Amino acid sequence: MRMVDLILKKKRGEALTKEEIDFVVTNFVNGEIPDYQMSAFLMAVCFKGMTKEETAIFTDAFAHSGDMVDLSAIKGIKVDKHSTGGVGDKTTLVIAPIVASCGVKVAKMSGRGLGHTGGTIDKLEAIPGFNTTIDKDRFFEIVNEIGVSVIGQSGNLTPADKKCYALRDVTGTVDSIPLIAISIMSKKLAAGSDCILLDVKTGSGAFMKTVDDSIELAKTMVDIGTNCGRKVVALITDMDIPLGDNIGNALEVIEAIETLKGQGPKDLTEVCIELAANMLYMAKMGDIDKCRKMVKDKIESGEALQVLAKMAKAQGGDPEYILHPEKFTIAPVKVEVKAEKDGFISHMDAEGIGISSTMLGAGRETKESVIDFGAGIKLVKKTHDKVSKGDTIAILYTSDEKLVENAKARFLKSVTIEDKDSKVDPLIFARVTHDNIERY
Amino acid sequence: MRMVDLILKKKRGEALTKEEIDFVVTNFVNGEIPDYQMSAFLMAVCFKGMTKEETAIFTDAFAHSGDMVDLSAIKGIKVDKHSTGGVGDKTTLVIAPIVASCGVKVAKMSGRGLGHTGGTIDKLEAIPGFNTTIDKDRFFEIVNEIGVSVIGQSGNLTPADKKCYALRDVTGTVDSIPLIAISIMSKKLAAGSDCILLDVKTGSGAFMKTVDDSIELAKTMVDIGTNCGRKVVALITDMDIPLGDNIGNALEVIEAIETLKGQGPKDLTEVCIELAANMLYMAKMGDIDKCRKMVKDKIESGEALQVLAKMAKAQGGDPEYILHPEKFTIAPVKVEVKAEKDGFISHMDAEGIGISSTMLGAGRETKESVIDFGAGIKLVKKTHDKVSKGDTIAILYTSDEKLVENAKARFLKSVTIEDKDSKVDPLIFARVTHDNIERY
Repeated sequence: MRMVDLILKKKRGEALTKEEIDFVVTNFVNGEIPDYQMSAFLMAVCFKGMTKEETAIFTDAFAHSGDMVDLSAIKGIKVDKHSTGGVGDKTTLVIAPIVASCGVKVAKMSGRGLGHTGGTIDKLEAIPGFNTTIDKDRFFEIVNEIGVSVIGQSGNLTPADKKCYALRDVTGTVDSIPLIAISIMSKKLAAGSDCILLDVKTGSGAFMKTVDDSIELAKTMVDIGTNCGRKVVALITDMDIPLGDNIGNALEVIEAIETLKGQGPKDLTEVCIELAANMLYMAKMGDIDKCRKMVKDKIESGEALQVLAKMAKAQGGDPEYILHPEKFTIAPVKVEVKAEKDGFISHMDAEGIGISSTMLGAGRETKESVIDFGAGIKLVKKTHDKVSKGDTIAILYTSDEKLVENAKARFLKSVTIEDKDSKVDPLIFARVTHDNIERY
Repeated sequence: MRMVDLILKKKRGEALTKEEIDFVVTNFVNGEIPDYQMSAFLMAVCFKGMTKEETAIFTDAFAHSGDMVDLSAIKGIKVDKHSTGGVGDKTTLVIAPIVASCGVKVAKMSGRGLGHTGGTIDKLEAIPGFNTTIDKDRFFEIVNEIGVSVIGQSGNLTPADKKCYALRDVTGTVDSIPLIAISIMSKKLAAGSDCILLDVKTGSGAFMKTVDDSIELAKTMVDIGTNCGRKVVALITDMDIPLGDNIGNALEVIEAIETLKGQGPKDLTEVCIELAANMLYMAKMGDIDKCRKMVKDKIESGEALQVLAKMAKAQGGDPEYILHPEKFTIAPVKVEVKAEKDGFISHMDAEGIGISSTMLGAGRETKESVIDFGAGIKLVKKTHDKVSKGDTIAILYTSDEKLVENAKARFLKSVTIEDKDSKVDPLIFARVTHDNIERY
């Protein structure tokens, strides 16, 4: 079998067989297939797509290219959650403790942020002492005791995806639904949970800019997971504006805590309730209404917040920060951004605001960048708010005054003020299961 | 400027600017742009094409990536010729001496064969002593004295094309009209002649399988050359069956000599007259009918054959082989291939016959293969001939008896015998100039 013939086959729009896909994945990982052949193949996939069968076989081969995590040491149903990435997306910090407080196990491996989106691991590390690199046995122990633990990806998980993703990033082959689905689902399958909730973001701050594309991606991923014997549900949620009001690591932890106290922003609270309820539903805790009620009860009783504090403590973090979030240090340079005219905020470009936050020091421009945990943005106004010239729209926080000017300019470029308000989008567009696509 | 952005631009189907193309070519040649980015770019070109302007700018950048040959030391108009490659294509050996005998200079750099097609340099090296690696000054001297010299490509000619071609070959990105045009025309522009005749082959033994594609490729190349101030004409010629009756290096030299004596096969003779006449026409030797007559006269008078003998002598070869071709050594193992049934030869797959010849030792399967100059195939019957079961269709020649079985099987697979004859195609389908596409 020659890779050039498989490239030509895909270029003609034909589907590869299981034998051919295994050949590609095995030899790409071991270095027999050079990057220049793989990148030509990936570009052909961008143009010609993949069948359902091909996507499923590729996902399975990617998952099995490295370790498959065995979570059997953890009792009960394990539920995982994946977000396709957004700006101000701190939902894991909120819903993982909620789900655990309801008695469903969350053994989660998360990533770091890169570019305009943040990562859960970076956010957790804003809690002083919090350790995201604990070993597997201790990880299992914490999940068994407290119900939840969140650690960084470690070990040799999906090396095929790591290598492929690095290549896609520099060869213009990121925006392909089958390639995105393979990347996400191979990691989720390897991570070992029984149920997987997918939060597929849609809009200006997301990979998928339209609801239809998001639904197609969600359906592809749900089908892959279902065929591999996992329970999978996907929600299509809005990422046309940042989720919640805070962007930046410590700022987002604070907002997550407020939400767990029942005092969070409305949009974040609503999305978290739906995500958590669907995780409980997959774990057979009752119908979706009953699950929603359980989630609300655990927020109201304060039990979910207690679980977050316990998890922080178990992972070496200071639980006092969770119970008294005013202890967090926010970056000292504080600059208010004012509206430049009267009108309605008709659009906030989430990606632009994410980039502005990164420019303040809150994110990574390259893998080597050091994060300023206290930096970020607090949105005072959001899309659809009425503003008068001179009103404060947002507050920027940074430790380095020199960073302000460019970040502020980038922020202002991301905010559109018009005489008339724009159409209000729902927070959740659709729910996708193996049998059904339900648009809201 | 980032290569990934240029890949994405081409992927969206947009045209690159001159500045962007220069960035791609310069940095690909110097190694700053890795092969994996270039191959993704080339695959995007296969799907999205290039505008006329892009193709022209790329060609110019490829040509200028290395040495530009200066032929000004050679007096008069210099005419070059390029064939897109075929099986049994020995036209250069016939027409270069004819054109030179008419007083038009041919300073030609040729390539070696690879895969199922032969190369002029290999054919010339079948003449004992013939040296294809003489230095530039001697090359100019021979052209000034005799009117023609054919040498191998040397020096640092179009390194961008060399690197790009090697990459295309293994990444499934060969069959793109702009990429083929850039590759051919950058070499021709760098080689320095004033006029360029393009022989674009069409059919089963050619890159281009249809006449329409061949015309599109021809027009693209003619326009590039014209815009760069060269005179260019293209003929679309048939490569659905091998050209002439002989395939293999010494066998093809013998057939070229027969053709220069006026005793060659009809198809080869006719194509050579048209190609040579068009070369003379570009060199302003008169209208096309006058040029055809000059060509025929130089064959009849024997002057063209004398020029080939002189060129052979000037390049260290034994001219006695040209004047007495019975001196050539043909490989000793001789096997007749018989018709397996009665009927008409309705099709001969030129590529398959080329591969069969390579399997006998006449060609290279890899760059390192050693050629058996005496090996090859003599076609006794060709497409449209009526045959009876047991009639000899061809004679295979090799020095290694072990090679016969597979080569014979491959040959038989390439010949279709049916009850009814197939449609007779013309030898020359069209003539393409900057102003006109004339279909025959």
